[in-house]
Amino acid sequence: MKKVAVIMGSDSDWPNVKPACEQLSQFGIPFEAHIMSAHRTPVQAADFAKNARKNGFGALICAAGMAAHLAGAFAANTTLPVIGIPLKGGAMDGLDALLATVQMPSGIPVATVALNGAKNAAVLAAQILAVSDDELAARLDAARDQMAEQIAQKEAKLQAELA
Amino acid sequence: MKKVAVIMGSDSDWPNVKPACEQLSQFGIPFEAHIMSAHRTPVQAADFAKNARKNGFGALICAAGMAAHLAGAFAANTTLPVIGIPLKGGAMDGLDALLATVQMPSGIPVATVALNGAKNAAVLAAQILAVSDDELAARLDAARDQMAEQIAQKEAKLQAELA
Amino acid sequence: MKKVAVIMGSDSDWPNVKPACEQLSQFGIPFEAHIMSAHRTPVQAADFAKNARKNGFGALICAAGMAAHLAGAFAANTTLPVIGIPLKGGAMDGLDALLATVQMPSGIPVATVALNGAKNAAVLAAQILAVSDDELAARLDAARDQMAEQIAQKEAKLQAELA
Amino acid sequence: MKKVAVIMGSDSDWPNVKPACEQLSQFGIPFEAHIMSAHRTPVQAADFAKNARKNGFGALICAAGMAAHLAGAFAANTTLPVIGIPLKGGAMDGLDALLATVQMPSGIPVATVALNGAKNAAVLAAQILAVSDDELAARLDAARDQMAEQIAQKEAKLQAELA
Amino acid sequence: MKKVAVIMGSDSDWPNVKPACEQLSQFGIPFEAHIMSAHRTPVQAADFAKNARKNGFGALICAAGMAAHLAGAFAANTTLPVIGIPLKGGAMDGLDALLATVQMPSGIPVATVALNGAKNAAVLAAQILAVSDDELAARLDAARDQMAEQIAQKEAKLQAELA
Amino acid sequence: MKKVAVIMGSDSDWPNVKPACEQLSQFGIPFEAHIMSAHRTPVQAADFAKNARKNGFGALICAAGMAAHLAGAFAANTTLPVIGIPLKGGAMDGLDALLATVQMPSGIPVATVALNGAKNAAVLAAQILAVSDDELAARLDAARDQMAEQIAQKEAKLQAELA
Amino acid sequence: MKKVAVIMGSDSDWPNVKPACEQLSQFGIPFEAHIMSAHRTPVQAADFAKNARKNGFGALICAAGMAAHLAGAFAANTTLPVIGIPLKGGAMDGLDALLATVQMPSGIPVATVALNGAKNAAVLAAQILAVSDDELAARLDAARDQMAEQIAQKEAKLQAELA
Amino acid sequence: MKKVAVIMGSDSDWPNVKPACEQLSQFGIPFEAHIMSAHRTPVQAADFAKNARKNGFGALICAAGMAAHLAGAFAANTTLPVIGIPLKGGAMDGLDALLATVQMPSGIPVATVALNGAKNAAVLAAQILAVSDDELAARLDAARDQMAEQIAQKEAKLQAELA
Repeated sequence: MKKVAVIMGSDSDWPNVKPACEQLSQFGIPFEAHIMSAHRTPVQAADFAKNARKNGFGALICAAGMAAHLAGAFAANTTLPVIGIPLKGGAMDGLDALLATVQMPSGIPVATVALNGAKNAAVLAAQILAVSDDELAARLDAARDQMAEQIAQKEAKLQAELA
Repeated sequence: MKKVAVIMGSDSDWPNVKPACEQLSQFGIPFEAHIMSAHRTPVQAADFAKNARKNGFGALICAAGMAAHLAGAFAANTTLPVIGIPLKGGAMDGLDALLATVQMPSGIPVATVALNGAKNAAVLAAQILAVSDDELAARLDAARDQMAEQIAQKEAKLQAELA
Repeated sequence: MKKVAVIMGSDSDWPNVKPACEQLSQFGIPFEAHIMSAHRTPVQAADFAKNARKNGFGALICAAGMAAHLAGAFAANTTLPVIGIPLKGGAMDGLDALLATVQMPSGIPVATVALNGAKNAAVLAAQILAVSDDELAARLDAARDQMAEQIAQKEAKLQAELA
Repeated sequence: MKKVAVIMGSDSDWPNVKPACEQLSQFGIPFEAHIMSAHRTPVQAADFAKNARKNGFGALICAAGMAAHLAGAFAANTTLPVIGIPLKGGAMDGLDALLATVQMPSGIPVATVALNGAKNAAVLAAQILAVSDDELAARLDAARDQMAEQIAQKEAKLQAELA
Repeated sequence: MKKVAVIMGSDSDWPNVKPACEQLSQFGIPFEAHIMSAHRTPVQAADFAKNARKNGFGALICAAGMAAHLAGAFAANTTLPVIGIPLKGGAMDGLDALLATVQMPSGIPVATVALNGAKNAAVLAAQILAVSDDELAARLDAARDQMAEQIAQKEAKLQAELA
Repeated sequence: MKKVAVIMGSDSDWPNVKPACEQLSQFGIPFEAHIMSAHRTPVQAADFAKNARKNGFGALICAAGMAAHLAGAFAANTTLPVIGIPLKGGAMDGLDALLATVQMPSGIPVATVALNGAKNAAVLAAQILAVSDDELAARLDAARDQMAEQIAQKEAKLQAELA
Repeated sequence: MKKVAVIMGSDSDWPNVKPACEQLSQFGIPFEAHIMSAHRTPVQAADFAKNARKNGFGALICAAGMAAHLAGAFAANTTLPVIGIPLKGGAMDGLDALLATVQMPSGIPVATVALNGAKNAAVLAAQILAVSDDELAARLDAARDQMAEQIAQKEAKLQAELA
Repeated sequence: MKKVAVIMGSDSDWPNVKPACEQLSQFGIPFEAHIMSAHRTPVQAADFAKNARKNGFGALICAAGMAAHLAGAFAANTTLPVIGIPLKGGAMDGLDALLATVQMPSGIPVATVALNGAKNAAVLAAQILAVSDDELAARLDAARDQMAEQIAQKEAKLQAELA
């Protein structure tokens, strides 16, 4: 199976990024996590992106806050799908990061998920790999059924409380 | 090759959605375009999403404005990658659509692109299909080179003007 | 008397939704509370909405945060009045939920109340049932008089402090 | 059948408010339209609201822009359901009106619809009256079916064009 | 000297409103503080405003949050200057209150100060009364000199620390 | 009677500022209009403000857009009431000007009116002068009655149309 | 004298960028204008920035809209002062570009000017070069005096009209 | 070497401004820190700015929150580069300060850095002085290399943890 790269701009982002790695593990998807910065280590970031496809990656997840250029800088250097996680914390509590991640120019998309949406970034990466991997697709369907089951249990618990 | 579905909530969205179809055509990717509404035809929308994978689709593109629920409604009914195009025009000129598209709950991602970003939605769909299709990946790389070439030509033209 | 349904997308929303149930109890209005998700249990949500009128409901209250599609998903499947409570907590502290709840397309309204406005959602549901129930209307008027009385008492207390 | 009142703060709002009246007509619901201002004719506005229930009204629709106090001023003087239509045009193109309409204090709800959502305000008023009027409810269901039918026709037309 | 009225919509606003009263006291300006609500006690609020000029008031200060209609409701019922203090705490942390206070329709101004700007509301009220009261104007000038003096002291302290 | 000064930062603001002068004329209030800039002619602006009281002014109206410092710069140099008109046209269509005008620091208020609210700035200036001028107060009351009368006429016209 | 580089991401930005070049010409400052894209020609952009100091540049001006990464991408590759011009036109009419330009991470500043502030970017570049160039500083002071003179002329014209 | 002035409007801003002074110290750049207010001590502020160039300053850093006029007031009185630090804390948590700082009128730029970006303001000041100081430029390049080195160390630590 192709690997997923999970990139963060700073080690302080790790708590917000870790759920992506945990979700990938749960789906049995191989991944690497890296600290690279669009602004502080631009050369390394560009090199990683340029070689990502031939190094066996199928999708890249980039998490950044404020003027969040990380996902865009990766997208500029690869045609692999790049998933952007805008992080909360700057002006307007993350709206700056959201707009800086999603409003990419024509030709260079970033697949943006919700603010601090690390888990969903991993689910999206899994969905991308599952397009050509029926077994992974089945695992995704099973996880979806499990979510519905959890809601049903909570609903039952609420009805018991209210009865 | 797997197909891409391009869904819009209203026929009035067609001018904003058409560039996605044109871009898919240019990449030689088979697609279908449909008008379906999360609110006015919820049953049809759910059915389409539920059967999309077995009907040969590899990615779904959903475009909607205002309280843009279309992509989310599709994502709720499939584990295929769902790409959301928020459309401009509501309160704050599309910010409502952007937030309604991207801020999905845990477990159900929507891969959101820029406001009115139909072309980029198609490029992202192509990138997703290219993960397991080296020939398509090569076409994407060629298109990227062509973009750089266009910039170089414009730069040359500007230098000629300024000289 | 017709019943009111109070729906939340997740059990974690219960503290913000409970005031609606308490207010309905105070008015003597029968209600049910349920956990259902527009994205995680879309089939159950649609079924509940479709059968709500014939199951004796007169109004539905739906509470959700972020890309708050819950009220819209219910409104798509019933012509009963659907009241939406946007919940705080996402980007811009609930503005995302507010816009995703209120900016519904033509033909499918959601009666939106203030952010975290569970109590007001219940008052609105009561006002709706009271249109054809003079006794309930009298109870609503009495509650309104009581509110004015409370303000008068606080005003008297302030004057005593300032004297 | 109870009547619906459609109130606007200024005659210049009439083009944005008229669709509410047309929609009420289509549903066969009796209505009155009035120009009254929370700020310029506060006494008349308060009087109208106080007497609305005994004058045979079942719901009030209030449309206003900018610091849109009209719906709130009516809601302060009646326990009938008050539906607020925020109008575009002020700072941030209507977000001011939306927030001023929806963010009502505890105990005094305004059922807020989308910006310039006059038609939906009328549909909501109809849904409110239909809670105790099965014939009107049937007309609402029929209108909903018609909407789905229109989408189906547009979808068919699009497929014909694409074929 | 004319009196100033300081009105708040709820006793919970008192901590944010008290600085206005303290500032008025410091300037030796007579004042009354009252709890009145545009929505919960609309009749009392309108009566107070209508009689304010003949009751010896020269300016009214109104503080409210969220869909902050209090100042506007007073301004609708008097031609005395009405000063609005938008309070923080609603959607977007007070921007809703600011817009609902300041965006008044033509002919009915509210003199709006900063979010939670109770002290400045009192200074503005004092400035208004001082237009025809040279002694009060001199007191305002003295207070302004004192502010400059305080800054000079802090600057001196900082220079001492840095030296 | 004291004079009112109407200051704009640029001659291009004149169309937005003129309604203030016209309204002052209608009330029979003497005024001067000036072009002065907080940034381009800071010395003149400061001098004007410092001498305004002794030169017979009772209130200053300042109109500016974008990083609208004009009212604040005047308020820093006088204890006369300073009324700020934020002008539309910058980022977020005037919200920048509104915030830059209203969010003044403690001790230096600016009485802010609505975006492009020139007429209301003049009404507010008149209300300020009327605190100690009963004849002007009577004129303001008459103007208010006239506004109500105009609404009544428009209401009558609407009823005639609908009948 | 050191040169200034004026970079734009697309030739369509030229009308918004040209005023910077004209202002630099007026000050007699040598400049180059280039089209380079952070996303479409990332290698060229990085190379230009890396060599800018040794190629005789003293400041770089970068103009971009939407997820405006251009200035940040240049700042990541040089320690020359980088001036960012956010361009209007994306979501929220340029606020996205403003936040994406200004909210840079620690250690990598971008000197951000107003939306579409090309002329001011050039003035800032001139101010930077003038720190060590007294003759240029004198030219800047003269231009400032001229601005005050223009305001004085407009003020005189207004007084003539009003007299 | 020319000096840098670091100005804050209030001593309460010192914790947010101190990092600028520390960064300047680290680069060996002489600086002064001062408390001066655009509104409370406008004369002192104007005098300081007017004399800054002849007093040996090469750049001015101004930090302020809310209706942040400090940087603009300095920029109005000097042609030295003025760097503005908008401070968080007002409406929309600093967006008011950001817009009030950056949206300067034509001819009077303020070089704006990120919200609370004191360190970056100092880096920018250093970059400005380094345009004509090769030794300082070398120190800036070394600091940049050190930042990349720190990221590399954190990346190595993360890889060790994940191995």
